[in-house]
Amino acid sequence: MYNKLLSDIALGKRKADLVLKNCQIIDVFSHGIEKGDIAIQDGIIIGIGEYSGKKEIDVENKFVSPGLIDGHVHIESSMLAPSEFSKLIIPKGTTRVISDPHEIGNVKGVKGLGFMLKSSLDTPLHVHIMIPSCVPATSFETSGSTISSEDIYSLKNREGILGLGEMMDYPGVINGEKSVLDKLDIMKDTNIDGHAPGVYGKDLNSYLLHRIKTDHECSTKEELEEKVRRGMYIHLRQGSATRNVKALSKGVTKHNSHRLLFCTDDKHPMDIVEEGHINYNLNLAIQEGVDPITAIQMATINIANCYQLKQVGGIAPGYIADLIVFDDLNHIEPSIVFINGKQVSKNGKVLFKTNKIENIHVINSVNVNVNEINLDLKLKNNHVKVMRLIENNVITKEVHRTVTVKDGLYVNDPNQDILKIAVVERHHYTKNVGVALMEGYGIKNGAVAMTIAHDSHNLVVVGDNDKDMMIAIQELKDIQGGITIAHNGTIVDSLQLEIAGLMTNQEFNQVKDKLIQMNKAARELGVNKKIDDPFLSLAFMSLPVIPDLKLTDKGLFDVKLFMPTKIEVSE
Amino acid sequence: MYNKLLSDIALGKRKADLVLKNCQIIDVFSHGIEKGDIAIQDGIIIGIGEYSGKKEIDVENKFVSPGLIDGHVHIESSMLAPSEFSKLIIPKGTTRVISDPHEIGNVKGVKGLGFMLKSSLDTPLHVHIMIPSCVPATSFETSGSTISSEDIYSLKNREGILGLGEMMDYPGVINGEKSVLDKLDIMKDTNIDGHAPGVYGKDLNSYLLHRIKTDHECSTKEELEEKVRRGMYIHLRQGSATRNVKALSKGVTKHNSHRLLFCTDDKHPMDIVEEGHINYNLNLAIQEGVDPITAIQMATINIANCYQLKQVGGIAPGYIADLIVFDDLNHIEPSIVFINGKQVSKNGKVLFKTNKIENIHVINSVNVNVNEINLDLKLKNNHVKVMRLIENNVITKEVHRTVTVKDGLYVNDPNQDILKIAVVERHHYTKNVGVALMEGYGIKNGAVAMTIAHDSHNLVVVGDNDKDMMIAIQELKDIQGGITIAHNGTIVDSLQLEIAGLMTNQEFNQVKDKLIQMNKAARELGVNKKIDDPFLSLAFMSLPVIPDLKLTDKGLFDVKLFMPTKIEVSE
Repeated sequence: MYNKLLSDIALGKRKADLVLKNCQIIDVFSHGIEKGDIAIQDGIIIGIGEYSGKKEIDVENKFVSPGLIDGHVHIESSMLAPSEFSKLIIPKGTTRVISDPHEIGNVKGVKGLGFMLKSSLDTPLHVHIMIPSCVPATSFETSGSTISSEDIYSLKNREGILGLGEMMDYPGVINGEKSVLDKLDIMKDTNIDGHAPGVYGKDLNSYLLHRIKTDHECSTKEELEEKVRRGMYIHLRQGSATRNVKALSKGVTKHNSHRLLFCTDDKHPMDIVEEGHINYNLNLAIQEGVDPITAIQMATINIANCYQLKQVGGIAPGYIADLIVFDDLNHIEPSIVFINGKQVSKNGKVLFKTNKIENIHVINSVNVNVNEINLDLKLKNNHVKVMRLIENNVITKEVHRTVTVKDGLYVNDPNQDILKIAVVERHHYTKNVGVALMEGYGIKNGAVAMTIAHDSHNLVVVGDNDKDMMIAIQELKDIQGGITIAHNGTIVDSLQLEIAGLMTNQEFNQVKDKLIQMNKAARELGVNKKIDDPFLSLAFMSLPVIPDLKLTDKGLFDVKLFMPTKIEVSE
Repeated sequence: MYNKLLSDIALGKRKADLVLKNCQIIDVFSHGIEKGDIAIQDGIIIGIGEYSGKKEIDVENKFVSPGLIDGHVHIESSMLAPSEFSKLIIPKGTTRVISDPHEIGNVKGVKGLGFMLKSSLDTPLHVHIMIPSCVPATSFETSGSTISSEDIYSLKNREGILGLGEMMDYPGVINGEKSVLDKLDIMKDTNIDGHAPGVYGKDLNSYLLHRIKTDHECSTKEELEEKVRRGMYIHLRQGSATRNVKALSKGVTKHNSHRLLFCTDDKHPMDIVEEGHINYNLNLAIQEGVDPITAIQMATINIANCYQLKQVGGIAPGYIADLIVFDDLNHIEPSIVFINGKQVSKNGKVLFKTNKIENIHVINSVNVNVNEINLDLKLKNNHVKVMRLIENNVITKEVHRTVTVKDGLYVNDPNQDILKIAVVERHHYTKNVGVALMEGYGIKNGAVAMTIAHDSHNLVVVGDNDKDMMIAIQELKDIQGGITIAHNGTIVDSLQLEIAGLMTNQEFNQVKDKLIQMNKAARELGVNKKIDDPFLSLAFMSLPVIPDLKLTDKGLFDVKLFMPTKIEVSE
């Protein structure tokens, strides 16, 4: 890029296209604040000092920091297409994300990644893609696709790919399983994200032999400290379900902060709008006593260093002009956001347009035939294992209950807080249906169903009668994915998620209105009021890597024993 | 690299080949000290904790830190082949160097780089090569070779290449000259080293537009601070001639130290043996009040981060087992050095062997014909510019003197402290000879000549009579490079530097003995006793980028005006 004009602008011989005047510049390199102007041309920061521009914006001594980076996010959790997602987070100051499209990967494999790569071109947000490392997550469920080591090899050098997504199969890594290590070996020259909740000591040593760099699953100060000592970069995560910033902020010191990062992992659109995005992580950490500039480093230059992103994460000549302007160093709420030197948001308003991405490969993902689905739950005795929902948590508790059995089949007892739950394979018409029992949800005369069901994203449905459950399944087939509520034989309401059954091209406001409406409807049908989100709480019932009991399309799964299990309690 | 054994060792199920027991491990990630064992296998650190090994070394609670890295070095300045150089620095704790073969590049171009790449395979020292960016340094001299942007392009992805060497043409960069920016553009995805002494403000902004990362030319705290603020990594340099650690240590803070590094740049073999190598930088910085662990970070993980070296610079599972053991945290003098998990030095002794590299492309580099060389200095008047040598410095001072002229030719006056100096082109038989006058050196009835003459490394010779000067030139032709002293028509002594006229395959002790002997001989012939090194002081007389007056094979050069100049003072 030979461009004499840029040199002339840097030297003050010619005017820059844009100059931000009177900035208090956050210096993430040496942890300071510098007063000055910032000259910008062709999307690049050209100079810091005193400059004049063809256009000048007087930021009136407000703070200007590098744009914030989300170090690890599953965009799918927003239920919005990437372009629509970007409209929520850019006004909050996030200008770049490291996205692990693990969810759409489970549904649509490499084609799902292609969709994410392509659709990220349709927004000013910088999107890096990590190749999901664990698709499917386990062999105890039927995913829509697999991402093999051969796929990883062929994707490795594709434009937009930054590395390998969170290596969740930590037992496989620790124990040196070849199929897992092969994937790590293929990607060893890139960035490899970790996922190692509660892994310590020699297990951690073994996990780290293979160039895994990061962990976003730390939940205690001590875990953070050990992992940093062992060379890891640690994400302080604040998502919708998993909220670790408060606890981990106690572990931030002047000596280790340069190895600490921020991420959201999974965050719902309404939480983004209400709380903020990565700026919320910062604001929480600052509240907990983390120095504000240190917090900004953790969301900018530290992430750039960890993932070896060039000319990113700082305000310096030659750096990409991703900048945010804000008033209060202790509560970061950007008034202006620039990406590539262009104003993309002002006072919370989005200043850019995006297009809907139409992609034939990611729609039509609900492949079930209701006539071939049987929701009967056969029981050999009436003393059974029940998945006890823990409000606002992704684990379940295994409880044992006595239920009504007639002619060898489970029968709902309206006086018991127990519902039938089914996971219906929806990718390949396999007719697989796992049926089990669940406690603590509470719907009456109805059913709730959805195609978001981690990690294989089959169709999960819960209800007190089979008829409403079947109607709900049919509805999701008709709208090709989403969330629905059935009551007394009819559909109450549905949110369509036509992209892989996970995301929608609809605008956030439509989605929000629909979700508020459906949330209300679910409460009216008796769903437990202690559950913050009646739909999301179902999405983890099918994830067979989080204790105690989970249900996949292949049946009930005991996560502690890491094997399938019978519903009946063995005598 | 699938290797189940490593996982088993990490887990403690099998014994490691080597375990260092009872270490005080320097934790460069979170700035601490941890007690424990270090398990090593296949050159890799496998685990930290409690381990047992097939071989165990009890380090008895000594400190163990990552091996030290020299962030920027011209190996040629040691006058030793890389393998011999490594035998000096490894016992001092340096296990890795980032080498810029700028000198041999000027003599032998791409073939010289090839020699450095290949010969670095012959030592356990890890050697990264930066492609010299400025060969030749200027167009006012005749170098042996050029390294063009086409060469740089074709070298870029060669094994062992880490980036582009110090961009010394800072005026070219700052003013946006296309030929310079083209080189930077080719290498923009790699590492680019800077060289920007005293460049501040808008000039610095312009210099930094092109992804130049580092500077090792800072000489003041303020310069360091501004450059760090602008996103640079700064090397605190301690070489033989340029000694900046003391002044710059005052600029090290807990907030900027992660952007600070150490280097030697140019260091003579005797200084390495007497003072140390990078450990000397650390020890000096520690004396100046820099925290010892911070200093270690600056020589290990910070350099790895800056140059994006993977699994380097820390003690953690999966990291390369380059380790040093030492007693005193305030004075680092390694008792044991490990590279790739192998003991390479103990108590200052070298435990590895190297081979001489024979390479036909880098010998026979002195291409002159004494019969065609004329050392006459024609003068139109007797009032002339003289290069005043500044003792132990690389600059000269321009002074004006009246000298004796007979028949239009300069004649030496034994009562004046003025000698004839000549730079003889030695690469291409061009017969170019630049002749000028020099003050402050002081040899009587003799001459000193050498083929080390920055940056083009022509043959520089100084003397009070043409006969000895010619004999000295002939001697360097006969031995194909080196340093020689002539006196009263005969050669007193010579050091052969057969590799490009810069380095030798001889062992350090031979070189040392010879240099001590020749140093003594030079003193006896009257060389100014205030000059620490009678030979090195000549090596910079030909460098036309450092003020005031310099001499190249094309004649006298006024560095301040940056143009050739006449010897006669214009009236």
